[in-house]
Amino acid sequence: MKKRYLLAPGPTPVPEHVALAMATPMIHHRTPQFSKIFAEAAQLAKYMFQTEQDVLILASTGTGAMESCVTNLFSPGDKLLVINGGKFGERWGKIGETYGMEIVWHNVDWGQAADPKKIKEILDGDPDIRAVMVQACETSTTVAHPIEELAKLTRDRDNCLLVVDGITGVGVFELPMDKWGIDALVTGSQKALALPPGLAMVALSEKAWARADESKCPKFYFDLKKERKNLANDTSAYTPAVSLVTGLLEVLKGFKEEGIENVHKRHNRLARATRAGGKALGLQMIAPDSPADSTTGFFVPEGIDGAKFVKTLRDEFGVTMAGGQDQWKGKIFRVAHLGYFDTFDIILAMSAVEMALKKFGHNVQLGKGVAAAQEILLEAY
Amino acid sequence: MKKRYLLAPGPTPVPEHVALAMATPMIHHRTPQFSKIFAEAAQLAKYMFQTEQDVLILASTGTGAMESCVTNLFSPGDKLLVINGGKFGERWGKIGETYGMEIVWHNVDWGQAADPKKIKEILDGDPDIRAVMVQACETSTTVAHPIEELAKLTRDRDNCLLVVDGITGVGVFELPMDKWGIDALVTGSQKALALPPGLAMVALSEKAWARADESKCPKFYFDLKKERKNLANDTSAYTPAVSLVTGLLEVLKGFKEEGIENVHKRHNRLARATRAGGKALGLQMIAPDSPADSTTGFFVPEGIDGAKFVKTLRDEFGVTMAGGQDQWKGKIFRVAHLGYFDTFDIILAMSAVEMALKKFGHNVQLGKGVAAAQEILLEAY
Repeated sequence: MKKRYLLAPGPTPVPEHVALAMATPMIHHRTPQFSKIFAEAAQLAKYMFQTEQDVLILASTGTGAMESCVTNLFSPGDKLLVINGGKFGERWGKIGETYGMEIVWHNVDWGQAADPKKIKEILDGDPDIRAVMVQACETSTTVAHPIEELAKLTRDRDNCLLVVDGITGVGVFELPMDKWGIDALVTGSQKALALPPGLAMVALSEKAWARADESKCPKFYFDLKKERKNLANDTSAYTPAVSLVTGLLEVLKGFKEEGIENVHKRHNRLARATRAGGKALGLQMIAPDSPADSTTGFFVPEGIDGAKFVKTLRDEFGVTMAGGQDQWKGKIFRVAHLGYFDTFDIILAMSAVEMALKKFGHNVQLGKGVAAAQEILLEAY
Repeated sequence: MKKRYLLAPGPTPVPEHVALAMATPMIHHRTPQFSKIFAEAAQLAKYMFQTEQDVLILASTGTGAMESCVTNLFSPGDKLLVINGGKFGERWGKIGETYGMEIVWHNVDWGQAADPKKIKEILDGDPDIRAVMVQACETSTTVAHPIEELAKLTRDRDNCLLVVDGITGVGVFELPMDKWGIDALVTGSQKALALPPGLAMVALSEKAWARADESKCPKFYFDLKKERKNLANDTSAYTPAVSLVTGLLEVLKGFKEEGIENVHKRHNRLARATRAGGKALGLQMIAPDSPADSTTGFFVPEGIDGAKFVKTLRDEFGVTMAGGQDQWKGKIFRVAHLGYFDTFDIILAMSAVEMALKKFGHNVQLGKGVAAAQEILLEAY
């Protein structure tokens, strides 16, 4: 009967009514009954992506959709500018290298966002660069990269696309694909969408679709043109993940009902409350200058073993948060607040952090972080 | 309150306790809690595959796992012999062509199995052929290809692998990977495993793993060597489909409890009962000589529009069966009996077929197919 709480940035908790919708009897995917669900989910996904373009639904996790952008938009030898400030930025580059692209690595310190001025310089200096590859939120560092500013740079360059991993961005904060001019936008099911992992989505701009016609990379399972053709008939090229798509429709109906602006506001409020709570406890944020509203990371205070801290939270308090990866392994912890999260999840998180810090002998005033979070969370009431 | 019954060859019905297991609260994938589930599922999958090799679990449908065999085992220019007697045989060839392989198409009439003698001649005549690509059950025609006989041909040829799409074979009928010498075996979640679509599995022989070291195809999401390395640490390279893996473990525990031989016997009994029922009704089987135990197909009697027949079964009787594809579109129907199926599903199926035939004005004696099926189904009691 150990009670457990999931506060890691994906997978995130699945709402009970969505879990039950996914547990309803299986239906065949080539029936009017399922086509209706598939078409409605794809339609509502456009609302979430803030686009008039098709949103393609893939039976894979987000990495598969990232790969689909690389293999459908580019050809071996193409030069891609990869903004690399964490695990997922690095992944864009690794996928590109796998498919024979020339990667221009733009390394950014972990915890820092890309500087659009520097990106402009690079693009001005090298007109052969065919895309900027970036994360809306680099989950490993909790950084939000300046997508709107980057889109201003790529929008008027005929030769250059902006390809955005929005896996922990879409449905969390403002990322209006059409308005800003994002050329490829990807998300996954297990983040803001509050579904189990196993479903990914991707949308392409007109400019990107034109590029897809020229691409010379091999692809079969992740052939986006084939998916687009099938979507026109309310279906997918291969068997869709029926239960997850059924859950997706439930979640997207909820998004529509809450209103996308309110979804963003809620995430922003939870993020600000978490930051304020941490600040009140004297914790140092890992992305102080450009934190995303998806998840908030703090350095573990000196003298505390970060790996043990996260393990104790999980195994003793029953609260699963995320630790750090690579250079931040054992040094940080990350509190998620994307998806099916609201006021009292943040209270729970702050309280757990306070109690764990105390347990580790850190000088902390119990309730101080909670109180600071409460101040902000009260805005909603 | 329209009551619906799913009797199509995938997705197949999900057992209630499995659906509920998948609806339990989400857990983080990088925790000892989930690693235990993942490792146990992978271990039990070896029992189902009848192999000592690793069974890799992918977050994709079966087509993704088919692609992984092509991209991990071969290189552009490699010559592959594709047994093409239906939609899925054709798919092996299309994937191979996508990745630059030279496909030797061995066309087999729809409804017929490959003849091992002819395959031997082809292999003897062309030592450059690096693999035989085949389906254990070609779902579109319900044919079982002679995998054991084909394995005898490839086993002693150092240069040639046997790559088997077991999507509607594994967990249905005897397909002992190690004993027969199958080099790559693939399955998907939504068939015998009675799970929603979205999960695939693949296992490779030692001979195939050696080949994987030489492969020059690009792959990232479907990199099997990377998956194997991660499986050694009880995890997957990218986020696993947590809920589906949780369901997989439940199903595989059930397989172990029933015993794989009994699972095969049950499927065989249901298949024989369905065939006998159809025969009693004077229906002609679409794969009379080598029918698989996964699904049984019949030609719709002359004078009846097959598309309307299947539509009436679905929309009026509430019974979803599968129609035909391509050259058999509107000409056949297929009754599934793989996965969570037992005696009274077959009774239901035969009864629905009889009643629909009667409704379409066909001269049929009600209850005759049911009775013939009952005779065989009684073997179990």
